[in-house]
Amino acid sequence: MVYSKPQPASNSRVLIFGAGNFGSCLASHLGDSQHEVYMWAREETIVNHFNLHHRNPMYLTEHDFPSTITAVGPNMPDKAFINNVDVLLFAIPTQFLRGTLTTLRPSLDLNNLPLIIFVNKGIEVDTNALTLEIIADTCGPEIANAATFISGPSFAKEIVERQPTSVSVASLTETEAVKAASLFHQPHFRCYTGVDPIGLELSGALKNVYAIASGMSDGLGYENNTRAMIITRGLSEMTCIGTAYGASPLTFLGLAGVGDLFLTCSSSNSRNYTVGYRLGQGESLDVIIKTLGSVAEGVPTTKGVKKIIEELGINAPIASSVYDVLFNGKDTRVAVRELMELPPSKELELPATAGGPARRLLLKLGQDAERLTDIMHPHL
Amino acid sequence: MVYSKPQPASNSRVLIFGAGNFGSCLASHLGDSQHEVYMWAREETIVNHFNLHHRNPMYLTEHDFPSTITAVGPNMPDKAFINNVDVLLFAIPTQFLRGTLTTLRPSLDLNNLPLIIFVNKGIEVDTNALTLEIIADTCGPEIANAATFISGPSFAKEIVERQPTSVSVASLTETEAVKAASLFHQPHFRCYTGVDPIGLELSGALKNVYAIASGMSDGLGYENNTRAMIITRGLSEMTCIGTAYGASPLTFLGLAGVGDLFLTCSSSNSRNYTVGYRLGQGESLDVIIKTLGSVAEGVPTTKGVKKIIEELGINAPIASSVYDVLFNGKDTRVAVRELMELPPSKELELPATAGGPARRLLLKLGQDAERLTDIMHPHL
Repeated sequence: MVYSKPQPASNSRVLIFGAGNFGSCLASHLGDSQHEVYMWAREETIVNHFNLHHRNPMYLTEHDFPSTITAVGPNMPDKAFINNVDVLLFAIPTQFLRGTLTTLRPSLDLNNLPLIIFVNKGIEVDTNALTLEIIADTCGPEIANAATFISGPSFAKEIVERQPTSVSVASLTETEAVKAASLFHQPHFRCYTGVDPIGLELSGALKNVYAIASGMSDGLGYENNTRAMIITRGLSEMTCIGTAYGASPLTFLGLAGVGDLFLTCSSSNSRNYTVGYRLGQGESLDVIIKTLGSVAEGVPTTKGVKKIIEELGINAPIASSVYDVLFNGKDTRVAVRELMELPPSKELELPATAGGPARRLLLKLGQDAERLTDIMHPHL
Repeated sequence: MVYSKPQPASNSRVLIFGAGNFGSCLASHLGDSQHEVYMWAREETIVNHFNLHHRNPMYLTEHDFPSTITAVGPNMPDKAFINNVDVLLFAIPTQFLRGTLTTLRPSLDLNNLPLIIFVNKGIEVDTNALTLEIIADTCGPEIANAATFISGPSFAKEIVERQPTSVSVASLTETEAVKAASLFHQPHFRCYTGVDPIGLELSGALKNVYAIASGMSDGLGYENNTRAMIITRGLSEMTCIGTAYGASPLTFLGLAGVGDLFLTCSSSNSRNYTVGYRLGQGESLDVIIKTLGSVAEGVPTTKGVKKIIEELGINAPIASSVYDVLFNGKDTRVAVRELMELPPSKELELPATAGGPARRLLLKLGQDAERLTDIMHPHL
């Protein structure tokens, strides 16, 4: 087993990759906690603007960032710099992660490894890989086993305002999750630890599909009952897909599961919800994507999820309907009617044979079958 | 085992006890489905007004009820009438149920039993009994075993507007749940069946405590992150309490659990949310109760829940905080701060030894220990 280097009691040196909405908000949170934060951005103009004004010109533009944060980039930090930080935090889109980690791998020293944390959400297009698998592919199983994942209901704007917020922190190596939780934990920011990063990652990706469905329902003019139904039946689908994949069903009861699902499905601040809402109002996906001004991850994720549910042989009617509306031109009203007209069924039937993809992934990480059982059935 | 009489293929004769918000809405839904509906009300003026105008003067006052509904009362229907209906539906407050069932028991014939359905939510004050236990006490174990429970995210106003709605339907006798689901099922009203009425009842009662907490947070001015945290941590507490009691943790993932929790915690239409919101804004409980105009079940339920968590030895900090705010004069802002300052913990730790109260209740119903295991661990 590989563990990250001991963390200092306070004032950790943290390097954050990504200066987007969530990356900058976490930089602010950690800087606010008196850590020494370096935030890497791809664009030189952002680096310069940030260091001059302590403002991010693109995201959270009204927020004054703590002076404990220094922007770096656009070049990648060198090996000496990487080896001198206590924490590496990745807040870049999933689709850029394989490239970044491949570039970075030669700088990582297994005997002096920083605590490594990922906050991206989503599935890699084409490969359908989770981040855990991308890490294993690019950095090897030791680093993947030590990697930690943070997810949960956390709008960036509310975090920088220090509104009470809680998140899930998961790693296959529990002590790493505990370290990451200690780094982030504050009286206004609670961290709950777990050992099911696969479930945490799947929650974060899948919830965006159901946020689109929830937006559609609101866009069609339906109200509270219908939205609560979509969230609950969506959660049931997420749990079935996750369990068939090899996650613990209980992970979906947590902050990264139902917490983030609830947040994303009930707020017009969510881009995925907005895509669904505008589809429900009758706009076409092309027009919505052209005018949205930012990426809605749920759209490509729906394609990946469709493949996963087909491979696993899972019945996930809401996700399939969202796919048909997005990519097969199905009318949103027809989609809702067809969902309501499905035959009556039991509330939650978890798949009997389960865990294939997680088993293959854990094997790649050098973990055995017993470990899968521990993760899937932690309490029962 | 006792089963209800065979149901007609269509046009069931349904007697509904209760003409409140939810009773009248279900009367409307079933009348709308061409069933022959009798709605019993305690007040003669309501009976007369309803039969004259097909309107309820107290609830859903703008709604034109189907002509398939006849109001009856204020006397209790006689034995001949009871024996001639296919369905008895109880939509009266939990606190009145013991009296009503005691009065009614001599009219019930085990060889010609109607399908018996309960939609009340909450715990009986003083005894802390669930409805299942009240039925066993007053009508005997055979009828309790055959009783069916309906719960889920369902605002009455939206049901009578035929907005898409889904609910959970549970009974210890699965065939009874399926019969009740068939009675209610419509293209705009989906029913999902289950066999964990204890979990369904506990969800329905507990969610009101967390709706008060969610309202408090909004009343204090916190936004999406905090509300999602309270809903999720509340769900975790509900699941722990439910599992310790002897329910299946997965019931809390369903429509009666997370679905109704989400609905109740996120809408100012909910009386319990409103109590919390006004507490968060600084009003006193006395003033709120005096001016609310209708009962908020969460207030007495919080007392019952406090006793249950103490007896079970469960750590339920949010429910305990709500109790302290309601009954010990704790300041809402202090309550939130204290919750946030609790030591870091794992996300969900289900109690290891569990099921005491459900075991005792099932024993009363003539069910054995194996049955409890089937209910608590249906899938795993």
